[in-house]
Amino acid sequence: MAEEEALRKQADTVRRLKQEKASPEEITKQVSKLLEMKSAMHPEEGKHKFVLKTPKGTRDYNPKQMAIREKVFNVITQCFKRHGAETIDTPVFELKETLTGKYGEDSKLIYDLKDQGGELLSLRYDLTVPFARYLAMNKITNIKRYQIAKVYRRDNPAMTKGRYREFYQCDFDIAGHYDIMIPDAECLKIVHEILCALQIGDFLIKVNDRRILDGMFAVCGVPDTKFRTICSTVDKLDKMAWEDVKNEMIGEKGLAPEIADHIGEYVRLHGGLSLIEQLLQDPKLSQNKLAREGLEEVKQLFKYLDLFGISDQISFDLSLARGLDYYTGVIYEAILLQEPNDHVEESVGIGSVAGGGRYDGLVGMFDPKNRKVPCVGVSIGIERVFSIMEQKMEASEEKIRTTETQVLVASAQKKLLEERLKLVSELWDSGIKAEILYKKNPKLLNQLQYCEETGIPLVAILGEQELKDGVVKLRDVVTREEVDIFRGKLVEEIKRRTRIL
Amino acid sequence: MAEEEALRKQADTVRRLKQEKASPEEITKQVSKLLEMKSAMHPEEGKHKFVLKTPKGTRDYNPKQMAIREKVFNVITQCFKRHGAETIDTPVFELKETLTGKYGEDSKLIYDLKDQGGELLSLRYDLTVPFARYLAMNKITNIKRYQIAKVYRRDNPAMTKGRYREFYQCDFDIAGHYDIMIPDAECLKIVHEILCALQIGDFLIKVNDRRILDGMFAVCGVPDTKFRTICSTVDKLDKMAWEDVKNEMIGEKGLAPEIADHIGEYVRLHGGLSLIEQLLQDPKLSQNKLAREGLEEVKQLFKYLDLFGISDQISFDLSLARGLDYYTGVIYEAILLQEPNDHVEESVGIGSVAGGGRYDGLVGMFDPKNRKVPCVGVSIGIERVFSIMEQKMEASEEKIRTTETQVLVASAQKKLLEERLKLVSELWDSGIKAEILYKKNPKLLNQLQYCEETGIPLVAILGEQELKDGVVKLRDVVTREEVDIFRGKLVEEIKRRTRIL
Repeated sequence: MAEEEALRKQADTVRRLKQEKASPEEITKQVSKLLEMKSAMHPEEGKHKFVLKTPKGTRDYNPKQMAIREKVFNVITQCFKRHGAETIDTPVFELKETLTGKYGEDSKLIYDLKDQGGELLSLRYDLTVPFARYLAMNKITNIKRYQIAKVYRRDNPAMTKGRYREFYQCDFDIAGHYDIMIPDAECLKIVHEILCALQIGDFLIKVNDRRILDGMFAVCGVPDTKFRTICSTVDKLDKMAWEDVKNEMIGEKGLAPEIADHIGEYVRLHGGLSLIEQLLQDPKLSQNKLAREGLEEVKQLFKYLDLFGISDQISFDLSLARGLDYYTGVIYEAILLQEPNDHVEESVGIGSVAGGGRYDGLVGMFDPKNRKVPCVGVSIGIERVFSIMEQKMEASEEKIRTTETQVLVASAQKKLLEERLKLVSELWDSGIKAEILYKKNPKLLNQLQYCEETGIPLVAILGEQELKDGVVKLRDVVTREEVDIFRGKLVEEIKRRTRIL
Repeated sequence: MAEEEALRKQADTVRRLKQEKASPEEITKQVSKLLEMKSAMHPEEGKHKFVLKTPKGTRDYNPKQMAIREKVFNVITQCFKRHGAETIDTPVFELKETLTGKYGEDSKLIYDLKDQGGELLSLRYDLTVPFARYLAMNKITNIKRYQIAKVYRRDNPAMTKGRYREFYQCDFDIAGHYDIMIPDAECLKIVHEILCALQIGDFLIKVNDRRILDGMFAVCGVPDTKFRTICSTVDKLDKMAWEDVKNEMIGEKGLAPEIADHIGEYVRLHGGLSLIEQLLQDPKLSQNKLAREGLEEVKQLFKYLDLFGISDQISFDLSLARGLDYYTGVIYEAILLQEPNDHVEESVGIGSVAGGGRYDGLVGMFDPKNRKVPCVGVSIGIERVFSIMEQKMEASEEKIRTTETQVLVASAQKKLLEERLKLVSELWDSGIKAEILYKKNPKLLNQLQYCEETGIPLVAILGEQELKDGVVKLRDVVTREEVDIFRGKLVEEIKRRTRIL
C-alpha cells in the first residue's frame, strides 16, 4: 500500500500549500500531480475524468502577468526600433523539411503535427530558421528585422526557472554582405541596451567564435566528423561540471582522454583583449588558419565594443559553444550574474537570457543555387526575465492596474440604466475610457467599491437632480471630492483630470 | 499527354503573371501548383526536391504588411481598452479533450499534434474555448477580457479573400451574472465602433437568438435531436442559395420537405423592432416558450442599441444561425456591404468580419460541478480587413515607412568608421533612433540614397573639419539644407526636428 501512502502524502502537500496560500501555479502543479496519482491507482474510475490544465510546459498569462509582459515587450521593441529594424511575421508552423537538418542534436525536441493528409508540418523551434526561409523564398539579400513570437520545444520544462515548452523569443537580425564585425558589434550593443533597460541586475555577455572552437578541436586532435557533437557537449559546461562534460566526451562521444584533457585546458580560459592577443601567440592555435581568422576578427569586434563603451561587461570565453548547428562565426550568450532578490528562497535561475551569433550558411541551404546571405542576430529569451520581474513586482507590493478605464458612469438612484447607457455611450464616442456596471439598479456603494478595486480614478454620477440641472456629479475616487460639471463640459474635464495617466 | 498539356498551360500562367508583375502571393501560389504538377508527373525526380514555401493556407507578413497589421491592431486594442477590458493569453495548443465536443460539425477542422509521447494536443480552433477553460481552471466568475491571437483551422483556404488556415482573432468577452442584454448590447457597440474606426466601408450587423432558432425548429416540426445539425445547414445561407440549403436539409439531414419549406418561410424574414413585435404575435412561434423568451430579450436588446444610437446598422435576421455548438442566446455577425474599391477586379470578398454571441453553458462544461458562468463575446476576424486595407494602400500609392529611424550617421570622407560608431552609440544612448551603414568606407551618395529609400528624414554627417570644430553637419533629406550643430546640442536638435513624426 505504498501507493496509498504516497497519495495521502501528496494530498497533505496540497492541503498545506492551500493553507499557506502558496502561488496558484504551485498549487495547480501539485493538484495535477495528485489527480494523476489518483487516476493511476484507479484507472477505470479516472478514465473519463477530465483534467483541467494547460499542456505540460505551458502557461496562461493572467491580466497582471500580461501587464508585466507588455512592459518588457515595450522596452525590447523600442530598442529594436531605435536601431532601425523593420518587423516581419511568419506562421507558427513550417513544412517539416524546412526545419530538418538545422538544429543538430536538438532536433528531437521539435513538435510535429499529426499527419491529417496534406503537408507534413512542425511547430517552429526558433525564429532564425523561418527568417532564413523567408529571405530565401523572397530573394531578399539585405534586411534588418525584428520578430517577437512564440517558439516550441519538447524540452524538460522547469517552470519556476522560466523554462517552458512554449516561450517567446525576441529576435533581431541583420542580413547582408557587410564589413567584418560591424553588424555583429551592433547586436551585442542591443543586448547590452536591453539588459540595462530591463533593470534585472548585473549581467555578463560571453563571446566566442565557431571558427576558434573548430580550430581548437582540430589542434586538440578531435576528428573532423566529431566537431559538431563535441561542440554540443562543450555547450553543457554552463550546467555541468567539467568532469561530467569530460566523461560524456570520452564515454558517449568516444574521444581519447588526452584529447579531452587538451580541450579542458582551453575551455577554462576567459578574458578580454589580452587573452585574444595571447591566443594569437599560442604556438598550436595560431597555426590553425580558421582559429587565427576567428581570433583576428574577435579582436576587431572588441575594439568596436570599446567604442560603444560596453566591453567591461563582455567576456571572451572559450567554453561558450552554443548547441545549434547553423552558427559559422561569432557566438554570444548573456547571463545574469546574481539573484535579483535575496529574500526569494527558490532561485529563479541564474542563467542565459539572450544568445545569438553569425550564421552565414543558413539562407543558402534554402536556395536552389546555394546563394549565401550572411546573417548575424540575437535572440532575447524573456521568460526568465518575466519570472524575475513577476517576483520583483510581488515583493514590492506595487499595485498594477490591468485596465486603463478613466471613469465609471454610475447612478445614485434606481431606474437610471437608460441614462447611464446614454452617457457612457457619449463618452465612448468621445474617446473616453469608460465603464458601467451591468446591473439595472446597482447600489452606489458597489459602484464606488468597483472603482477602488480596479483603480478607476473618476466616477460620473447621475441622479434625478443632476439630470434636471443638465449636469453630472464628477467624483474623485481617492479624495472623494465631488463637483457638478455641465454635461457639455464633461469630456473635457475628464481628459484634463486624467491626462497624466 | 493531357498532363503535359496542363503542365505547359500552368507554366504559361506563371510566365504571364511574372510579366504582369502580379502579386508575389499569386505568383507563389501558381509556382507551387506548377511544382506540384511536375512532381506528380515525375515522382522519382521530384522526390528530394525541396519546395520553398509556407504551409498551405498560411502566409508571411512582410514589413509593409506588418505596418498595416499594427495599425489595425491599434484601432481594435484601443476600442477594447476604452471599454475597460483586461487582456490574457493562453497557449497555442490545448489538451485535445479540452476542444472535444465544442465545435459540432467543424471539429474535423481541428489541427492535432503528433503523438510524440505524453499528452495529446490540438492547436486552438478559436479563443473562446481556451477562455472558458481559463475561467473554469482559475474559478473566475466575472471578468471582461480581450485577447488577440492566432487560431488554426484545416479549412479550404481562399487567400485572396482573406481566408487562411492560420489567422488572427481579436476577441472581447464579458463573463459574469449580469442583467439581461446589457453586456450583449456593449459587445455590439464594440463591433460598431471598430468597424467605423477601420473605415472599410458600409457594414451591417445581423442579430438572431439561438432560442428563437430552436423555437422556430420546434414549431416547424424538426425533431429535437436534429436541432444542431439543421442549425449548421441554415448557417450556410450566407454562401448558398435557399434551394441548395433546402436540398441539404432533405437529402443529407433527412428532413421532410414540408418542414424544410416551413423553415424557409421564417428564415427569409429580417427587419427591426417591428419584425420582433410581429413575431411575438405569430400564432405558432409565440406559443413556444423558448422562442418567446428569446424574442422578448432581443426586443430589450434593440432598445439598448437605440440608446447607443447604432440600431440603424443592425438587422434582426432569422437566417443567421452560426455554426458553433456552444451558443445559447443572442448571436450576431457583421458583414461588409460593398466593395471598398471598385477598380479592383477580383473581389476581396464581401463577407463576415466579426461574429459572436452568448454562451452560458461553456464554462460549466469544464467545471467538475457544472457551475455555470454566463458569457457573451465577440470575435473580430481581421484577415479580411487586412486584405482590404492592403489593396487600399496599394491603390493609393501612399508610401508606408517600415522603420522609425530619425537620423543616419554618415561620413563624408574615408576612415571615419570609428567616429561614426562613437556618434551613433551616443545617439542610441540618448534614445534617438539612429542607423549607420555597415561599411568601413561608404560613399556619401550611397548614404544619402539609403535615407531617401527608407524615409529617414535627417543625416548627421561627420568629416575631418566637423570633428576639428566639434560640430556635426545636420542635413534635412527632403530640403537638402545643411546646418552645423554643436555636438552637445545634436540630440536636442534631432528631437526638436522629428517631434511631429
